[in-house]
Amino acid sequence: MTYNVQIKVMPLKDLLDPQGKAILGGLNNLGINTIQDVRVGKHITLQIDAASEEEARKAADEASKKLLANPVMEFYEIEFVN
Amino acid sequence: MTYNVQIKVMPLKDLLDPQGKAILGGLNNLGINTIQDVRVGKHITLQIDAASEEEARKAADEASKKLLANPVMEFYEIEFVN
Repeated sequence: MTYNVQIKVMPLKDLLDPQGKAILGGLNNLGINTIQDVRVGKHITLQIDAASEEEARKAADEASKKLLANPVMEFYEIEFVN
Repeated sequence: MTYNVQIKVMPLKDLLDPQGKAILGGLNNLGINTIQDVRVGKHITLQIDAASEEEARKAADEASKKLLANPVMEFYEIEFVN
């Protein structure tokens, strides 16, 4: 079966996010002042062939740990959509 | 009130996603062969000060249109989390 998996990779909460700060500055320059904080990460969608949801989750977890996220600076969340 | 808003910005479905293709190649090199397709976009979280959810959605929509997403190549989805 094919599972659609979404992985969110975001900078750790304790770390500065310079890209987010830059976007916040850009928004202020555009006159949008109601936005107080911006953080930017990656959104990755995977299509996984697996026998069960558990197996698919294991593949997504392995991919996140080995390639998609840098645990020193980022955390990730895996979500199934169908 | 402060609203936490998540915006997902992804490449349009009809377009090639070279970054996703590169990740797919990397995953195969790592021996992860169950993953068939990868697409990569941005995940942006905003903190918005607004009187109502409708007002917050308007601000998020404006920010997406003007700065966060390029409608020629990307679509976006806004989601509220609380």
